[in-house]
Amino acid sequence: MLEFITSYIGFFAAFCTTIAFLPQAIKVFKSKSTKDISLYMFIIFTVGVLSWLIYGFVINDMPIILANAVTLILSFFILIYKIRYK
Amino acid sequence: MLEFITSYIGFFAAFCTTIAFLPQAIKVFKSKSTKDISLYMFIIFTVGVLSWLIYGFVINDMPIILANAVTLILSFFILIYKIRYK
Repeated sequence: MLEFITSYIGFFAAFCTTIAFLPQAIKVFKSKSTKDISLYMFIIFTVGVLSWLIYGFVINDMPIILANAVTLILSFFILIYKIRYK
Repeated sequence: MLEFITSYIGFFAAFCTTIAFLPQAIKVFKSKSTKDISLYMFIIFTVGVLSWLIYGFVINDMPIILANAVTLILSFFILIYKIRYK
Protein backbone atom coordinates (compact mmCIF):
# COMPACT_ATOMS: atom_id res chain seq x y z
CA MET A 1 0.00 0.00 0.00
CA LEU A 2 2.79 2.42 0.97
CA GLU A 3 4.67 1.34 -2.16
CA PHE A 4 1.62 2.16 -4.25
CA ILE A 5 1.31 5.64 -2.70
CA THR A 6 5.06 6.23 -3.19
CA SER A 7 4.85 5.30 -6.90
CA TYR A 8 1.80 7.50 -7.24
CA ILE A 9 3.68 10.51 -5.77
CA GLY A 10 6.58 9.85 -8.16
CA PHE A 11 4.33 9.62 -11.22
CA PHE A 12 2.39 12.72 -10.16
CA ALA A 13 5.67 14.64 -9.65
CA ALA A 14 7.02 13.53 -13.06
CA PHE A 15 3.72 14.41 -14.73
CA CYS A 16 3.72 17.93 -13.23
CA THR A 17 7.35 18.81 -13.97
CA THR A 18 6.90 17.50 -17.54
CA ILE A 19 3.54 19.05 -18.44
CA ALA A 20 4.39 22.39 -16.75
CA PHE A 21 6.26 23.51 -19.87
CA LEU A 22 3.16 23.15 -22.06
CA PRO A 23 1.40 26.38 -20.91
CA GLN A 24 4.69 28.26 -21.35
CA ALA A 25 5.12 26.86 -24.87
CA ILE A 26 1.51 27.83 -25.74
CA LYS A 27 2.06 31.32 -24.28
CA VAL A 28 5.17 32.10 -26.36
CA PHE A 29 3.55 30.54 -29.45
CA LYS A 30 0.53 32.84 -29.11
CA SER A 31 2.27 36.04 -28.00
CA LYS A 32 5.57 35.73 -29.92
CA SER A 33 6.96 37.67 -26.98
CA THR A 34 9.79 36.26 -24.87
CA LYS A 35 11.42 39.35 -23.32
CA ASP A 36 10.99 38.20 -19.70
CA ILE A 37 12.12 34.63 -20.36
CA SER A 38 15.74 33.87 -19.55
CA LEU A 39 17.75 32.60 -22.54
CA TYR A 40 20.31 31.01 -20.19
CA MET A 41 17.58 29.17 -18.31
CA PHE A 42 16.32 27.47 -21.47
CA ILE A 43 19.80 26.73 -22.85
CA ILE A 44 20.91 25.11 -19.56
CA PHE A 45 17.54 23.38 -19.05
CA THR A 46 17.45 21.95 -22.59
CA VAL A 47 21.02 20.61 -22.21
CA GLY A 48 19.99 19.14 -18.83
CA VAL A 49 16.87 17.44 -20.20
CA LEU A 50 18.86 16.07 -23.14
CA SER A 51 21.34 14.64 -20.62
CA TRP A 52 18.46 13.08 -18.66
CA LEU A 53 17.24 11.49 -21.89
CA ILE A 54 20.70 10.04 -22.63
CA TYR A 55 20.87 8.85 -19.00
CA GLY A 56 17.45 7.18 -19.41
CA PHE A 57 18.65 5.34 -22.54
CA VAL A 58 21.92 4.25 -20.86
CA ILE A 59 20.18 2.81 -17.77
CA ASN A 60 17.23 1.73 -19.98
CA ASP A 61 14.57 3.38 -17.79
CA MET A 62 11.35 3.97 -19.73
CA PRO A 63 9.74 6.55 -17.34
CA ILE A 64 12.90 8.71 -17.50
CA ILE A 65 13.03 8.37 -21.30
CA LEU A 66 9.34 9.23 -21.83
CA ALA A 67 9.14 12.14 -19.37
CA ASN A 68 12.32 13.75 -20.69
CA ALA A 69 11.47 13.20 -24.35
CA VAL A 70 8.27 15.22 -23.86
CA THR A 71 10.05 17.89 -21.78
CA LEU A 72 12.85 18.13 -24.36
CA ILE A 73 10.39 18.89 -27.17
CA LEU A 74 8.65 21.59 -25.10
CA SER A 75 11.84 23.11 -23.73
CA PHE A 76 13.51 23.17 -27.17
CA PHE A 77 10.38 24.75 -28.67
CA ILE A 78 10.47 27.56 -26.07
CA LEU A 79 14.23 28.01 -26.64
CA ILE A 80 13.72 28.38 -30.41
CA TYR A 81 11.03 30.99 -29.80
CA LYS A 82 13.30 32.81 -27.33
CA ILE A 83 16.10 32.96 -29.91
CA ARG A 84 13.77 33.97 -32.74
CA TYR A 85 11.59 36.53 -30.91
CA LYS A 86 13.89 38.44 -28.61
CA MET B 1 34.08 2.67 -15.94
CA LEU B 2 30.73 2.67 -17.77
CA GLU B 3 29.03 2.96 -14.37
CA PHE B 4 31.17 5.99 -13.58
CA ILE B 5 30.25 7.67 -16.89
CA THR B 6 26.55 6.85 -16.33
CA SER B 7 26.62 8.42 -12.85
CA TYR B 8 28.42 11.43 -14.27
CA ILE B 9 25.72 11.94 -16.94
CA GLY B 10 23.03 11.68 -14.24
CA PHE B 11 24.73 14.21 -11.96
CA PHE B 12 25.38 16.58 -14.87
CA ALA B 13 21.72 16.30 -15.94
CA ALA B 14 20.47 16.95 -12.38
CA PHE B 15 22.87 19.88 -12.01
CA CYS B 16 21.65 21.49 -15.26
CA THR B 17 17.90 21.07 -14.66
CA THR B 18 18.36 22.41 -11.11
CA ILE B 19 20.65 25.38 -11.74
CA ALA B 20 18.77 26.43 -14.92
CA PHE B 21 16.20 28.28 -12.80
CA LEU B 22 18.84 30.54 -11.25
CA PRO B 23 19.30 32.88 -14.29
CA GLN B 24 15.48 33.12 -14.58
CA ALA B 25 15.18 34.00 -10.88
CA ILE B 26 17.93 36.65 -11.24
CA LYS B 27 16.24 38.04 -14.35
CA VAL B 28 12.82 38.55 -12.72
CA PHE B 29 14.49 39.90 -9.55
CA LYS B 30 16.34 42.55 -11.56
CA SER B 31 13.63 43.46 -14.07
CA LYS B 32 10.50 43.01 -11.90
CA SER B 33 8.87 42.11 -15.20
CA THR B 34 7.16 38.74 -15.68
CA LYS B 35 4.66 39.37 -18.48
CA ASP B 36 6.00 36.65 -20.80
CA ILE B 37 6.33 34.04 -18.05
CA SER B 38 3.47 31.56 -17.76
CA LEU B 39 1.76 31.59 -14.35
CA TYR B 40 0.41 28.07 -14.95
CA MET B 41 3.88 26.78 -15.78
CA PHE B 42 5.26 27.92 -12.44
CA ILE B 43 2.22 26.78 -10.42
CA ILE B 44 2.34 23.29 -11.96
CA PHE B 45 6.14 23.14 -11.84
CA THR B 46 6.32 24.21 -8.18
CA VAL B 47 3.69 21.60 -7.21
CA GLY B 48 5.69 19.01 -9.21
CA VAL B 49 9.00 19.86 -7.57
CA LEU B 50 7.35 19.80 -4.13
CA SER B 51 6.02 16.32 -4.99
CA TRP B 52 9.54 15.24 -6.06
CA LEU B 53 10.84 16.50 -2.71
CA ILE B 54 8.20 14.50 -0.80
CA TYR B 55 9.01 11.48 -3.00
CA GLY B 56 12.72 11.91 -2.18
CA PHE B 57 11.97 11.94 1.57
CA VAL B 58 9.67 8.88 1.31
CA ILE B 59 12.26 6.77 -0.56
CA ASN B 60 15.08 8.49 1.41
CA ASP B 61 17.11 9.46 -1.66
CA MET B 62 19.51 12.29 -0.90
CA PRO B 63 20.26 13.40 -4.52
CA ILE B 64 16.49 13.74 -5.23
CA ILE B 65 15.99 15.64 -1.94
CA LEU B 66 18.90 18.05 -2.54
CA ALA B 67 18.26 18.77 -6.22
CA ASN B 68 14.55 19.38 -5.66
CA ALA B 69 15.04 21.46 -2.50
CA VAL B 70 17.17 23.90 -4.52
CA THR B 71 14.77 23.87 -7.49
CA LEU B 72 11.78 24.39 -5.17
CA ILE B 73 13.33 27.56 -3.69
CA LEU B 74 14.09 28.98 -7.16
CA SER B 75 10.77 27.96 -8.69
CA PHE B 76 8.77 29.32 -5.73
CA PHE B 77 10.76 32.57 -5.88
CA ILE B 78 9.89 33.02 -9.59
CA LEU B 79 6.23 32.13 -8.87
CA ILE B 80 6.03 34.79 -6.13
CA TYR B 81 7.48 37.38 -8.51
CA LYS B 82 5.05 36.31 -11.22
CA ILE B 83 2.08 36.80 -8.85
CA ARG B 84 3.41 40.08 -7.47
CA TYR B 85 4.59 41.70 -10.72
CA LYS B 86 2.06 40.81 -13.37
